[in-house]
Amino acid sequence: MSCVIGIDFGTLSGRAVVVRVADGAELGTAVHDYPHGVLTSALPGGTRLGPGWALQVPADYIGVLRHAVPAAVAAAGIEPAEVVGVGTDFTACTMVPTTADGTPLCELPAFADRPHAYVKLWKHHAAQPQADRINRLAASRDEPWLDRYGGLISSEWEFAKGLQLLEEDPEVYAAMDRWVEAADWIVWRLTGRYVRNACTAGYKGIRQDGRYPSPEFLAELHPGFAGFVADKLDQPIGQLGEAAGTLGAPAAGWTGLPEGIAVAVGNVDAHVTSAAARALEPGQLVAIMGTSTCHVVNGDEAVAVPGMCGVVEGGIVAGLWGYEAGQSGAGDILAHYVPPTSTHERLTELAAAQRPGEHGLLVLDWHSGNRSVLVDHELSGLVLGETLATRPEDVYRAVVEATAFGTRTIVETFERAGVPVHEFVAAGGLTKNALIMQIYADVLRRPLSVIGSAQGPALGSAIHAAAAAGAYPDVRAAAAAMGRKSEAVWRPDPRASAVYDELFAEYTRLHDYFGRGGNTVMRRLRAIRRRAVRQ
Amino acid sequence: MSCVIGIDFGTLSGRAVVVRVADGAELGTAVHDYPHGVLTSALPGGTRLGPGWALQVPADYIGVLRHAVPAAVAAAGIEPAEVVGVGTDFTACTMVPTTADGTPLCELPAFADRPHAYVKLWKHHAAQPQADRINRLAASRDEPWLDRYGGLISSEWEFAKGLQLLEEDPEVYAAMDRWVEAADWIVWRLTGRYVRNACTAGYKGIRQDGRYPSPEFLAELHPGFAGFVADKLDQPIGQLGEAAGTLGAPAAGWTGLPEGIAVAVGNVDAHVTSAAARALEPGQLVAIMGTSTCHVVNGDEAVAVPGMCGVVEGGIVAGLWGYEAGQSGAGDILAHYVPPTSTHERLTELAAAQRPGEHGLLVLDWHSGNRSVLVDHELSGLVLGETLATRPEDVYRAVVEATAFGTRTIVETFERAGVPVHEFVAAGGLTKNALIMQIYADVLRRPLSVIGSAQGPALGSAIHAAAAAGAYPDVRAAAAAMGRKSEAVWRPDPRASAVYDELFAEYTRLHDYFGRGGNTVMRRLRAIRRRAVRQ
Repeated sequence: MSCVIGIDFGTLSGRAVVVRVADGAELGTAVHDYPHGVLTSALPGGTRLGPGWALQVPADYIGVLRHAVPAAVAAAGIEPAEVVGVGTDFTACTMVPTTADGTPLCELPAFADRPHAYVKLWKHHAAQPQADRINRLAASRDEPWLDRYGGLISSEWEFAKGLQLLEEDPEVYAAMDRWVEAADWIVWRLTGRYVRNACTAGYKGIRQDGRYPSPEFLAELHPGFAGFVADKLDQPIGQLGEAAGTLGAPAAGWTGLPEGIAVAVGNVDAHVTSAAARALEPGQLVAIMGTSTCHVVNGDEAVAVPGMCGVVEGGIVAGLWGYEAGQSGAGDILAHYVPPTSTHERLTELAAAQRPGEHGLLVLDWHSGNRSVLVDHELSGLVLGETLATRPEDVYRAVVEATAFGTRTIVETFERAGVPVHEFVAAGGLTKNALIMQIYADVLRRPLSVIGSAQGPALGSAIHAAAAAGAYPDVRAAAAAMGRKSEAVWRPDPRASAVYDELFAEYTRLHDYFGRGGNTVMRRLRAIRRRAVRQ
Repeated sequence: MSCVIGIDFGTLSGRAVVVRVADGAELGTAVHDYPHGVLTSALPGGTRLGPGWALQVPADYIGVLRHAVPAAVAAAGIEPAEVVGVGTDFTACTMVPTTADGTPLCELPAFADRPHAYVKLWKHHAAQPQADRINRLAASRDEPWLDRYGGLISSEWEFAKGLQLLEEDPEVYAAMDRWVEAADWIVWRLTGRYVRNACTAGYKGIRQDGRYPSPEFLAELHPGFAGFVADKLDQPIGQLGEAAGTLGAPAAGWTGLPEGIAVAVGNVDAHVTSAAARALEPGQLVAIMGTSTCHVVNGDEAVAVPGMCGVVEGGIVAGLWGYEAGQSGAGDILAHYVPPTSTHERLTELAAAQRPGEHGLLVLDWHSGNRSVLVDHELSGLVLGETLATRPEDVYRAVVEATAFGTRTIVETFERAGVPVHEFVAAGGLTKNALIMQIYADVLRRPLSVIGSAQGPALGSAIHAAAAAGAYPDVRAAAAAMGRKSEAVWRPDPRASAVYDELFAEYTRLHDYFGRGGNTVMRRLRAIRRRAVRQ
């Protein structure tokens, strides 16, 4: 029996899953929590971080290889020799500043107390001023790549985070040989080779039609930034599902796996899930719904969609244009509104007894900003309609509805731009909640398909490992054999949908008023806050 | 030693205070909780109430006379014979439907299960559709009295509540001989005489320049409403601080006080507090800050102030024009945001450690609607700016600030209209919280005076009792001898005020957008909610 291992590097932990190549059966799994989690207020040594910062410690990722992989093999009851390939996926855009050999700068004693020497996690939101300047300059220069990102580059991506690094700690910037996506850094650690994956290079690295933003453009942002691409970023590209190389001796030692087996090109959690959900054809939109939500869908051609995260050739699967959109918050906003004396389960039960519209509330789900379609991390949450009679389950249900309205905004934006959405496939932790699924079906006015695995990203990475190992001719063939999906599990209730149409119109009015310049109070409150904290 | 008794009928209980006539010393006090509290979901017999309803049981008020008054006399250690007068104040507009002898209709067995036969408490908010029609018709007919109420009649007042009664239960309406302010009903019970006080007749009863709205106006609202004033409402007027009569035998029996002592004309909790705070001169604004907030200030003349609750000749003290405004929620909104695992004290302590603007939040304090200056009980609360890092103390502080912004809106509206505010005098339960007081001083950019009694209304009623008993020539003289106030207890911090100026501008922008027609989403959510609940 031959097996592959998929490893999913999430925000707080990494998970390894042992998968049978023949049929995708998940034979064993193990999780390793990152000892340092997410650093938001201070470095391990005590150095304070400003508002919006979110860092990680790269040694925590190696811990996943050392602990979760052997534990998954043991749980599966297989011999390591049966493993023919490894695939990985990572959060993105998560960036590691390294030396020429891939050593993270934070591991050098000289930089251990420098925040900019650490990994900037996807949800590091302190580079918004840099993103704003990138967007203004790109618009004024009419840069050809801007349309591929819906007209806006996110503060979460490689250029904004890199420019923040240069401007706030030029010494660390000068010492940095490579500015590496964690998705590629982990493959570098596994294989000893640095291969840049086509997915993050395209979505997060502004690589379009084989080119990056020009040195002239970068120099206008900051004179020292002109060489950013050539000096720190550029690297040969690997296509998704190809082998980046083979497992090297150090990684074989960490994992207990045989040296020399195939290691797939790095990938992103959301994007690999499309393979696990057998949803790689044009028009099959996969929503990975968890702490935050990511939407990926393939199209036959590249069209400009306002406010999406990007369209990249081969960004999800070779040969198609991969579109990505996202919502910065979902499950984490729900968790924020669970009082200390209640639970998700209890509030779900109470909220499920209500009729649409009964709580009288409307929420904007921007507690972590808005990724699509506004691409603005200075936006914030809004709860409207509360009275003294409002109960926690009312707010809970209204937050679910708000995230569903956000999803509908994204789906409608895709379709209006000419990217058809034929099927909505739900994946991720929120699919376990029947109330959430029903509300999404009602709000979207469509049946929802659901992925057949609780470990979508890890299964998707395993599928890519199987393709990289040559067990299947390509990722589509591997996905057809190893992926799983149930169709039309949730169907819309027309009466509920009619009420949600009305509420969605109200959501849209508030969305546009606060998000498109009608009243930029959310940005001004952030500015006032920064000033107050500084004083 | 001669004493008087002030009795304050609040929302959940009544309080009696024994006060020395010579100097206002409070010698003893006692509280009686209303056994039925506020009925919001069902009558005592189980009949269900709709959303927005708030009823009371009049026998609970008699309980205050029977229990709190003797207990206060006992606590004071005086002989009942030393008591020379009784004064009362009540919530308003709180309405009792009665027979010709003052018997509440709900005490007739035939009507015990009819919601409209009960007392409609001030915060009964189910008559908004009637208020809307009254306002539209009054505006279209250019009724001369409309300006005296800032252009809007509240759903809380006598006419909207009366019209709701007629339209929803014409049989109870037909059986109702008198539609009586609770402030006057309790004096009727004490003396055996029904005297209508100038204060509620003017503020809540639309009595201006000796006249009420015309039969023609009322007939246009509903044919059966034409005789409302003549048949149910009109009654000889008593001025504040006059004697309505003397204590009758039944009330002497309930209270243990001597038959024949003076009983002051009925009055309202907020309005009597001006006497207790020695703030009866033009420009001395008294804010009674508790569950909700009421603002009263005297002026030399009647001018039109948009969105205030009313201006009434002799409405606070004889010889001046009394202006009233209010905020529907204050302390109750704060209580709504105290998590079950925290307390007001703890949140206050944590919030006090913050700088203005640090929490990044902006709140609209409309959880019970907006009384002044928008007079719209279909409005609801708004919390803007929340992130996943927002803590309960952040929201708590933002709610305090929002209520302070609401107060500033009222003060500025008075001054812009030509009603000067020379001094801001705080009274009520919230004055005990130093953080709230400091924020109000900072937001208002003025020093705050504070009343010198924790029982402002009851002391004010006692002052009116002293005047009614002839112990002083008038209420002003009685207030000068018996009232108490400390000046400029809280002073604004200019740095904090500068930040609050910015936040107040943001508050005003949201206030006008959601409250003055920019986006009437709050009203539409109420309509959707009513439809959902009905289904």
